[in-house]
Amino acid sequence: MSGRELKKTIVETAGPPDFKVGVDNAIFSVDTAQNRLLVLLVMRQHEPFLGQWSLPGTLVRHSESLEDAAYRILAEKIRVNNLYLEQLYTFGDLGRDPRESPDSYGVRYLSVSYFALVRFEEAELVGSGVRGIAWYPLEEVPQLAFDHNKILQYGHRRLRNKLEYSPIAFEVLPELFSLSDLYQLYTTVLGENFADYSNFRARILKLGFLADTGLKVSRGAGRPATLYRFDAEAFAPLKDKPLVFI
Amino acid sequence: MSGRELKKTIVETAGPPDFKVGVDNAIFSVDTAQNRLLVLLVMRQHEPFLGQWSLPGTLVRHSESLEDAAYRILAEKIRVNNLYLEQLYTFGDLGRDPRESPDSYGVRYLSVSYFALVRFEEAELVGSGVRGIAWYPLEEVPQLAFDHNKILQYGHRRLRNKLEYSPIAFEVLPELFSLSDLYQLYTTVLGENFADYSNFRARILKLGFLADTGLKVSRGAGRPATLYRFDAEAFAPLKDKPLVFI
Repeated sequence: MSGRELKKTIVETAGPPDFKVGVDNAIFSVDTAQNRLLVLLVMRQHEPFLGQWSLPGTLVRHSESLEDAAYRILAEKIRVNNLYLEQLYTFGDLGRDPRESPDSYGVRYLSVSYFALVRFEEAELVGSGVRGIAWYPLEEVPQLAFDHNKILQYGHRRLRNKLEYSPIAFEVLPELFSLSDLYQLYTTVLGENFADYSNFRARILKLGFLADTGLKVSRGAGRPATLYRFDAEAFAPLKDKPLVFI
Repeated sequence: MSGRELKKTIVETAGPPDFKVGVDNAIFSVDTAQNRLLVLLVMRQHEPFLGQWSLPGTLVRHSESLEDAAYRILAEKIRVNNLYLEQLYTFGDLGRDPRESPDSYGVRYLSVSYFALVRFEEAELVGSGVRGIAWYPLEEVPQLAFDHNKILQYGHRRLRNKLEYSPIAFEVLPELFSLSDLYQLYTTVLGENFADYSNFRARILKLGFLADTGLKVSRGAGRPATLYRFDAEAFAPLKDKPLVFI
């Protein structure tokens, strides 16, 4: 029996493998001024993939839950008051981490990913000005470390679903917004062709949870736009009903 | 320093903890003849929780992905031709497994759960007749091992969402079905009051992907019922659009 075969036999008979468990965050934001969908990337400071861009991540510590780890890594990268965070998906394919080498005696690396959405205007990068952390427009994201491009793809799909089926838009808009602000947010995430403005406007007003504040705002030429706010009380009875927002 | 404190120090400084990773399946089925929503439970043959009911689960092996493990445990418990399976959620709270004892030097136990829906009429329990495996009506599920009641709760919510937002019902109905069969499936999962029959009927026909086969079926008294089939081709253009099915 060769050394390699012997090692394989030892691994296979040693019972189920040990895993290191990482948490990786797909943190999205929408720059509403420039109509850009952004994702937070950090440059890796260690091997593997030293110097390559990646989603912010960490290995889970002894005393923390998965969610604790997700909040910790987020707090290390940005300061933000309002945020939406939920678990996204768990990635555990064989060989997804180069540290799963033949010399590692079968230790595997699992990533539990989290999806977050933060308000761009109030999100402050920690250590900003320092190299190695940046908001990337989604369409300019480079090749990332590990399987992070795939995680990001899952995150983007979740974000679209959330906009279609939940009131998540109101977590990232300012408290008062025009219907055109809301429409721009949707087109930035879903693409130009998801619905035309007048259909979108009619549909969203009909749902009955946007309150007309009576205030108007003038921007450039054209008529002043009415400002609305999300009426959580009016939305409450709809909360558990299946609903499409667009 | 006491022995316990010393051990804690060793654990905390030894770097990130090792995890054993399990896969647990919430496998649902609908007994359409009896209008019962069922979940597959197995009796544990080992400690911890020896002799207690649990979701079917396994520790992930060296050579398999998470999904491989989910399919393996399913194949060990039931034979079925059609099935729907997807990842549900990952549970990793501290102390969720009693094997995370103070003597385990910090080894943690993570559960990646999967959600499955199978067609009751064709699902054959492996080793049926043997004790220790059973379809349980959801409302009669006992206290389960570990945090499996919580996993089951997540699974039930996913099942409801899938019925509301996707054509998953047609994976568990026979190829030809009446609108009353479809309505019964929905009420079995969502409860009696989700919609009245005539609204449901109008709504689902309007979506345009149920094809009238021209066939009728007589059951008991009353008029013969028209048989429909799911028209995948008519559904294709709707596939990526946000849609509510009820």
